[in-house]
Amino acid sequence: MTNSEQMHLTVQLSSGYGVEPGGWRWPGENPSAFVDIETFVKAAQVAERGMVDAFFMVDIPGTANDIARSQPQTSLDPIVVLTSMAMATERLGLVATMSTTFNEPYNIARQFRSLDLVSKGRVGWNVVTTGASAALLNYLPGLPSSEHKHARSREVHEAVVKLWGSWPQDALLLDVEGGRFADTGKIKSIDYRGEFVTTKGPLNLPPSPQGMPVVFTAGGAQDGFQLAAASADATYNNPYDIQSAQRYWSTLKNAMARHGRKPEDITVFSGIITSVASTEREALDRRAALDDLADPDSRVAYLGYMLGIHLDGLDRGKAIPQDLMARARPTPADPRSRRAYELAKRGLTIRDILAHGPINYHPVALGTPEQVADLLEAWFRADIGRGFNITPDSGLTALTDFVDQVIPILQRRGLFRKAYDEPTLRGRLGLPYRNG
Amino acid sequence: MTNSEQMHLTVQLSSGYGVEPGGWRWPGENPSAFVDIETFVKAAQVAERGMVDAFFMVDIPGTANDIARSQPQTSLDPIVVLTSMAMATERLGLVATMSTTFNEPYNIARQFRSLDLVSKGRVGWNVVTTGASAALLNYLPGLPSSEHKHARSREVHEAVVKLWGSWPQDALLLDVEGGRFADTGKIKSIDYRGEFVTTKGPLNLPPSPQGMPVVFTAGGAQDGFQLAAASADATYNNPYDIQSAQRYWSTLKNAMARHGRKPEDITVFSGIITSVASTEREALDRRAALDDLADPDSRVAYLGYMLGIHLDGLDRGKAIPQDLMARARPTPADPRSRRAYELAKRGLTIRDILAHGPINYHPVALGTPEQVADLLEAWFRADIGRGFNITPDSGLTALTDFVDQVIPILQRRGLFRKAYDEPTLRGRLGLPYRNG
Repeated sequence: MTNSEQMHLTVQLSSGYGVEPGGWRWPGENPSAFVDIETFVKAAQVAERGMVDAFFMVDIPGTANDIARSQPQTSLDPIVVLTSMAMATERLGLVATMSTTFNEPYNIARQFRSLDLVSKGRVGWNVVTTGASAALLNYLPGLPSSEHKHARSREVHEAVVKLWGSWPQDALLLDVEGGRFADTGKIKSIDYRGEFVTTKGPLNLPPSPQGMPVVFTAGGAQDGFQLAAASADATYNNPYDIQSAQRYWSTLKNAMARHGRKPEDITVFSGIITSVASTEREALDRRAALDDLADPDSRVAYLGYMLGIHLDGLDRGKAIPQDLMARARPTPADPRSRRAYELAKRGLTIRDILAHGPINYHPVALGTPEQVADLLEAWFRADIGRGFNITPDSGLTALTDFVDQVIPILQRRGLFRKAYDEPTLRGRLGLPYRNG
Repeated sequence: MTNSEQMHLTVQLSSGYGVEPGGWRWPGENPSAFVDIETFVKAAQVAERGMVDAFFMVDIPGTANDIARSQPQTSLDPIVVLTSMAMATERLGLVATMSTTFNEPYNIARQFRSLDLVSKGRVGWNVVTTGASAALLNYLPGLPSSEHKHARSREVHEAVVKLWGSWPQDALLLDVEGGRFADTGKIKSIDYRGEFVTTKGPLNLPPSPQGMPVVFTAGGAQDGFQLAAASADATYNNPYDIQSAQRYWSTLKNAMARHGRKPEDITVFSGIITSVASTEREALDRRAALDDLADPDSRVAYLGYMLGIHLDGLDRGKAIPQDLMARARPTPADPRSRRAYELAKRGLTIRDILAHGPINYHPVALGTPEQVADLLEAWFRADIGRGFNITPDSGLTALTDFVDQVIPILQRRGLFRKAYDEPTLRGRLGLPYRNG
């Protein structure tokens, strides 16, 4: 079975918890996960047991959400977390976001290469610009313009890749007998001088078994799309339905062709939230209970906003009254709004509408393990770019359910690997060795 | 036995090797140690077996020496290395250098706090400015002035400590029942605006069991001395003889008193190179053989420079001829030069003079385990600030010899702990919990 006939999966925990803001309160989850490396390490080991391509860490270096009642969105430094995971796993890939908006190329190049060497070629760098002011103001006196951020990002990415390439594989001699450590004629300065960043190089470390880390990008934003089209090895995308996913992949393939690249040069990971239970009814109840742990009133209000009606004061255990529905004004161009309207029209209770996830950032795959596998299979067969980034609802226990209950079904259907074929992340994504 | 009656020890490997530049070629050492995390992890486990206070990593982010024949001085990123060590040890302290010359305070604060949380309070930050142009030019378009570096360093240190203090211990509630994650009224922005760095805060992580990381500094340089006097918890010093060490400690104590601080508020770690063997003769032969692995001619030339005479073409196996010695002009103010002259006057062969280490940066403790322990005891009893940073000659095997052969002697003499008394590094150094 070739690479393109099986799906690729990364998994994610948000600062040690699931994607739902009440995850820290869910029975069985660790309330202090955001500072407990053991939770992250266990998550990595669970992911590896499921032959998952990689663990993925988003990152916003700051406190970007209100943590009076919700868990924080990010916490421990991703390099520290992924290094801990590298020490406790053998094959799992390790992908971290590190922003180009305020980090130095030499630090990015060196930290990712160090982690890539420690993990023997399992690392990916997710190239992003930072939007959250709660992070930007931890580094900069004011908010930079998008143009500034995109221009700096291009420079940082270029400089990092050049630094990685500055030490070619054959420059390391380690000739103990002859006393030749390295062929320094092959290790060259890069003398990078951009408008925003400067770095002389060379990098002080040789390539890993995969060469350089896999380059990911957040391909939804404009600059991320450009990087995905021109050179990235993988991209995260956040479509809410199959149609949006297909449209993105089709547009990306065309843009890649203009750069002389083939579809198999990249893997698109679409974000999916999973909620696994014994029945669909149980999964909906699980999600409603999770909602109840984290400010359900504001979720109801947001649902109303999406439908163009006010839902305050209504009984969440009942359907939206028909006369109110008659005044609903969804936004058809927004698939979330369309989905909310469709669920409401079916007469579902407000709790169940919300449980289906129309106000979630990612689509929700919920129900029995078979139902979750069905959704992934349907998307996969619809030609959406071969990959998914799985975000479990509550936390580590939900990740474990996905790995132990859904992945075996995907494996039985021939949709997912039963063993790690390639030792490096680059190889696993069907990409050749590359350094610089 | 109180803290002040026992010595404190940190140990160090230079990028995975010993301090001698031919260490990578020494039998039993790993030639590829600089990219092999297992070597670092084993070193940490050996150090922990010896109840050593902490493993210490210097750092120059760049290629600061010629690696055609010698091992590199630095390699893997210190945060990656220390995280790996944290995962493989329980009690060992972990101290890394991170420069204030080009790093952002928020990154320093967050990476060290992350590591401090992962290790449960075992981390130290060594605050330094960077001098090596091979590192500076990886970050900056030109070489900054000393004034610029010192002023920026003061700001970065201040901002980092404020960020650490921005999340007080009692702000983390984790009240699962009541749904209160944190008392956000206690987690405050710091709004730091300096001339060189800006950071709003707060930090996104609570304190570790020791509060904030232990602050080390390189106390030989002027700015490091100021930080050591004013507030640092520990300092590295590089005296070549007991008199210099005493002078430094006495000067530092006076400077601390002017800041209202007591001697026990700081631990001074003096750098010592160790070469352990069965006899003194074997230790000298070992060191001569290590010299032979790394450009011995240039070492002879440097010895000549120190003595003010030319030694080219002389038989290294013989003493310096008396007529040549009559023309020697050592520099009496330089203890290394004084030591070289004294050894030469005793009629030692050139190889043996060099083996005694007069051209090494640190003094060399060589000979039997007892002799090495004797030197450490003599220094310790001479009131030099209670600590040593041990740099073994060849690498991990030499570190193992020190731990397994010298430390038991120090323990029998009551000079070093037999078990880890305190779980945190701060506690081990006799310092109270502190955060910000």
